[in-house]
Amino acid sequence: MFSTDIAIIGGGPVGIFAAFQAGMLGMKAHLFESSNALGGQCAALYAEKPIYDIPGLPEVKAIDLVQNLIKQASPFKPQYHTLAEVIHLSRQEGRWLLESSSHLKVAAKAVLITAGGGLLVPNKPPLEKISEFELSGSIAYKVDSIEEYRDKDVLIAGGRDSAADWVNSLCGIARKIFFVHRREKFKCTLSSLEKITEACEKGLVEMICPAQILGIEGENGVIEKVKIGFPDKSEREVLVDKVLFFFGLKTALGPIGSWGIKLHSGRIIVEQETCQTNLSGIYAAGDIAFYPGKLKLILSGFSEVATALHHAYSEVFPGQAMHLQHSTDKGLPSA
Amino acid sequence: MFSTDIAIIGGGPVGIFAAFQAGMLGMKAHLFESSNALGGQCAALYAEKPIYDIPGLPEVKAIDLVQNLIKQASPFKPQYHTLAEVIHLSRQEGRWLLESSSHLKVAAKAVLITAGGGLLVPNKPPLEKISEFELSGSIAYKVDSIEEYRDKDVLIAGGRDSAADWVNSLCGIARKIFFVHRREKFKCTLSSLEKITEACEKGLVEMICPAQILGIEGENGVIEKVKIGFPDKSEREVLVDKVLFFFGLKTALGPIGSWGIKLHSGRIIVEQETCQTNLSGIYAAGDIAFYPGKLKLILSGFSEVATALHHAYSEVFPGQAMHLQHSTDKGLPSA
Repeated sequence: MFSTDIAIIGGGPVGIFAAFQAGMLGMKAHLFESSNALGGQCAALYAEKPIYDIPGLPEVKAIDLVQNLIKQASPFKPQYHTLAEVIHLSRQEGRWLLESSSHLKVAAKAVLITAGGGLLVPNKPPLEKISEFELSGSIAYKVDSIEEYRDKDVLIAGGRDSAADWVNSLCGIARKIFFVHRREKFKCTLSSLEKITEACEKGLVEMICPAQILGIEGENGVIEKVKIGFPDKSEREVLVDKVLFFFGLKTALGPIGSWGIKLHSGRIIVEQETCQTNLSGIYAAGDIAFYPGKLKLILSGFSEVATALHHAYSEVFPGQAMHLQHSTDKGLPSA
Repeated sequence: MFSTDIAIIGGGPVGIFAAFQAGMLGMKAHLFESSNALGGQCAALYAEKPIYDIPGLPEVKAIDLVQNLIKQASPFKPQYHTLAEVIHLSRQEGRWLLESSSHLKVAAKAVLITAGGGLLVPNKPPLEKISEFELSGSIAYKVDSIEEYRDKDVLIAGGRDSAADWVNSLCGIARKIFFVHRREKFKCTLSSLEKITEACEKGLVEMICPAQILGIEGENGVIEKVKIGFPDKSEREVLVDKVLFFFGLKTALGPIGSWGIKLHSGRIIVEQETCQTNLSGIYAAGDIAFYPGKLKLILSGFSEVATALHHAYSEVFPGQAMHLQHSTDKGLPSA
């Protein structure tokens, strides 16, 4: 178990800036990120897109903003834990105890939640018995191991790059791939589509579109057949072992909703003056924080981080006076 | 007279960012800066110092931050007015009318005050009749025209670079310079001091230190003599035409204090949720704004600008709904 001053939940730009701001205030920080990389939606959803409204950065790619923030925090050596979704938060012996899905335990004097829109989770089709097939691994939304698909009949559904890329990546590994998309037009790069067309000519891939999956049948998590419907109401059944859906990502609050923190429409209510939640010592900043007049701008999140951590100072260093100084006067404090 | 959406008072980093943010929201902006350059204290007091706590900029010189912000706002072509201290603010025909010391008039739908610590004004010595000598130009705190000092006897007081630099710059132009400093040690670059020593040997400059100015005598704004006191209580009189004091700069609220805006210890009280003052349509952001929990950080000022201008939207565009969008989705709106 780790012991620290500040535990930060969520490793998007606002969370990484919190690691920096904690360091500036002389606080040690551990940061939990549920995905496999820092950067939040900036890295996962629009890494290459330019952002124009970060003050002092006329144009910056989202992924470069993330890299800059990581560099900025690095002198303070924050502890980053990726693939670590915080699933339990409890009060123990005057500290906040955080436990992650990866069995990591951290005891912290204060907690700052910077979880953005929450967890990024896949969009799922509204099909019956879907969780049973998910548990067995017959239905998935990402590929954890290519070998699981070797010599299998696989159905891949979706129309964007993630779907098309996996059709090509699994082509030759899977025995046969059925590529199902509900529209005639694909929103993926042309070169991917050309490769798929070649694979179709070789009989490795069969494209079924425009078409929709109507249902998946099977027992004990084993798929027997997938029912596909066409615009003219005709139907077709295909026999496959595995189905991969690539319908994009959405955000979900996840376990945060079960810790007794007051929420408003899926966001955490904070007092604007302190960014503290209804639980003393638990703060929130960035898109996940809500107060009247709140703007969902990255720059507002940065400012909320400063507000939260300055207020948390008295919890982290009880009885010590804080003298607000500017970085130009003192430079960076040592880590 | 100009007509605009937003009038911004103060051209420091927060004010320049306000010009950008206004543009992002489709608002035209005019910015008043009392000094001769944009950048506020960042440019005037610590241009070459690195700042470490601007999110996404691990280390940036103050003057470079200012340049970045000017570049960021440039697509929106904000109107910058330097040497334009706003001296009057009044309500006229449903608009706010601003009048500057430079006789500039701007009618605006809303006003955002980003005046930082206020005006940068010179520190003055506590001497009698000083304003009479200031009015006549016999006493000054900066050199507006070198020619005014030609063939004059000049006393320059101060111990830092600004004083030493002007001793050297006026050397050979003034008939004689008396250089008075209250300490034996100077806080200026060695090379400046070496030049002054050479000028002393030629009889162009006389250094009088450690010594203090006790009083200045004269009539109708014309100086007769300056009384100087030494640590051993002895005194000396020197006959000069002009006196220049370089005792550093301090900040002062200036005319802003006379517009009916509620203040707290020389700062403007705003409601944190909107950044609006007690006057509807008048906003404040950055160091000059005060609310409970306020942090004097540049990044907090940036966030307050966003809050203020989003709230001002309904005053600028009455009846139009604002849809908050992110720059990654829409790019920059056209200016």
